[in-house]
Amino acid sequence: MNNYQSFLDLFLKHLEEYRSHLNSKSPKELYEPENYILSLGGKRLRPLLALIACDLFDKDPKLALNSALSVELFHNFSLIHDDILDAAPLRRNKETVHEKWNTNIAILSGDVMLVKAKQVLEHYDFKEFKKLNILINKTAIEVCEGQQHDMNFESMDNVHVTNYIDMITNKTAVLLGCSLKMGAINANAKEEDQTNLYAFGKHLGVAFQLMDDLLDAFATDQKKFGKQIGGDIMANKKTFLFLKAQELASEKQNKELLKLMKTKDPQKKVEGVLTIYDTLNIKKICQQEADVHTLQAIDFLNKVNGNASKKENLKKYAKELLNRQA
Amino acid sequence: MNNYQSFLDLFLKHLEEYRSHLNSKSPKELYEPENYILSLGGKRLRPLLALIACDLFDKDPKLALNSALSVELFHNFSLIHDDILDAAPLRRNKETVHEKWNTNIAILSGDVMLVKAKQVLEHYDFKEFKKLNILINKTAIEVCEGQQHDMNFESMDNVHVTNYIDMITNKTAVLLGCSLKMGAINANAKEEDQTNLYAFGKHLGVAFQLMDDLLDAFATDQKKFGKQIGGDIMANKKTFLFLKAQELASEKQNKELLKLMKTKDPQKKVEGVLTIYDTLNIKKICQQEADVHTLQAIDFLNKVNGNASKKENLKKYAKELLNRQA
Repeated sequence: MNNYQSFLDLFLKHLEEYRSHLNSKSPKELYEPENYILSLGGKRLRPLLALIACDLFDKDPKLALNSALSVELFHNFSLIHDDILDAAPLRRNKETVHEKWNTNIAILSGDVMLVKAKQVLEHYDFKEFKKLNILINKTAIEVCEGQQHDMNFESMDNVHVTNYIDMITNKTAVLLGCSLKMGAINANAKEEDQTNLYAFGKHLGVAFQLMDDLLDAFATDQKKFGKQIGGDIMANKKTFLFLKAQELASEKQNKELLKLMKTKDPQKKVEGVLTIYDTLNIKKICQQEADVHTLQAIDFLNKVNGNASKKENLKKYAKELLNRQA
Repeated sequence: MNNYQSFLDLFLKHLEEYRSHLNSKSPKELYEPENYILSLGGKRLRPLLALIACDLFDKDPKLALNSALSVELFHNFSLIHDDILDAAPLRRNKETVHEKWNTNIAILSGDVMLVKAKQVLEHYDFKEFKKLNILINKTAIEVCEGQQHDMNFESMDNVHVTNYIDMITNKTAVLLGCSLKMGAINANAKEEDQTNLYAFGKHLGVAFQLMDDLLDAFATDQKKFGKQIGGDIMANKKTFLFLKAQELASEKQNKELLKLMKTKDPQKKVEGVLTIYDTLNIKKICQQEADVHTLQAIDFLNKVNGNASKKENLKKYAKELLNRQA
């Protein structure tokens, strides 16, 4: 995964430069939360994808630095607002913005970040600026729609697995496609190549989310996973695993599942649900579904007219990310 | 004020057309609140200003219809989020979005409207699109900054009248300047004319807010005013009137003001504060401050190289709005 260290360094330097201007800005209640959430780290996957995509066409990845910053700002805006919606106390083991400050400040500083995600694109010329904006506007709306569907699922009894795939496609996957396509636009790649890279990112994003669902239930190394194992089960989250289990379960198993959802004892709940998952072979089915999307992703990447060895590198990187702890 | 009825009709038709697409969109939790807040009416001042500005240069006002829609969407996004921040139960005598649905839906549907305020500009060509985006991005950030300053003032003891003018300039006045400048951009007006029209709108916006502060305390016809008279005083709002009174008050009067702020009985509070305002001649001072900004506004409008009789019309309209119930 160290392949792209130089791109990561490039982006982090650009981000530092951007952040250095935030300290002096007023009112500090708006800009400190932005600086804070940008300091929390993470893989910086989305900005990396923008640089990688640009480089794939043998163009200077620096051309995509402001696209990279744009998607990172957008992603972090969505984290601030989503954390309010989810009433989440922690983000990357640190206090969320609405906890550290308050909800009003989290709403408003998120709003500003959403605007700035577009504003940093003003560095590009007219045509590039418009293409990038059309893409990020469309993506931003899809992300919000995905988030709303996710909230709706909480109180719905009849969520189908396909609804779930649609939801995660919008909520998380399209932003990966968007990041790659922005880099391709910066590289002035052909329309067709932009579209194929976008589809690569989108399917990869679905595969990532499915693997994340899987690890949440089956990871063996909590430290490596970074989140509480069984967290989704404890929270009655309608993940792929749960919905697939509901779909395949006998009447008796479904009654048991519903009973377990109401169980107060978290250990008993997790163990009970995992037993049903095991009986129904849910782990393997989820893995297979992720594989389908990974293969689709790779198919789209193969169609891209980019530097062949760089494409191989990107495939390797994608697979490493997917298998990070499976 | 009926001068611009044809422009209003033009805009309302365009808005209806836009709203008609919202009904079929999913998830409905995101689009019903948008449709709802856009249905609440209002003067539609900002979109009107965009059309008026375009027409001022003898260009078809229809050219500015998407700019007009953009500022109206932005304005309504800010209303949804501000109503959360202010915990306001009512907006134009109807339930606010967070009351009618919930805070999560209000956050997310506001986010989508903020994105769509930019998206509707995609109808314009590359150059126009970028110019309009640069302007609305800058304005959006200023509006958020103004809102944050306004919230900060609540817990500050040392707010100066100039801080207040700066705050209302950002929170409300720049969006009027922005609306006019967008229309001027659509008319392909000279840079200098765009700048002067923006300044006209900004100073007019400050004058409007000062008159609003004044009416909140001194309006005689509650129905005509549309809000509860004395509402700002009851809520201890640091308006121009209050801050100016603090500045001019004797030590004894200041103690009395602070005592009145803690008074529970609303009638006693309003009467007490109004007595101090009267003693200090605050109504006249506020009117004079509004006049200064109105005159500055008119000066900037005079410099604009637009159709002379249309400029006169706009001046008349601005004055009518300012004097609506003084």
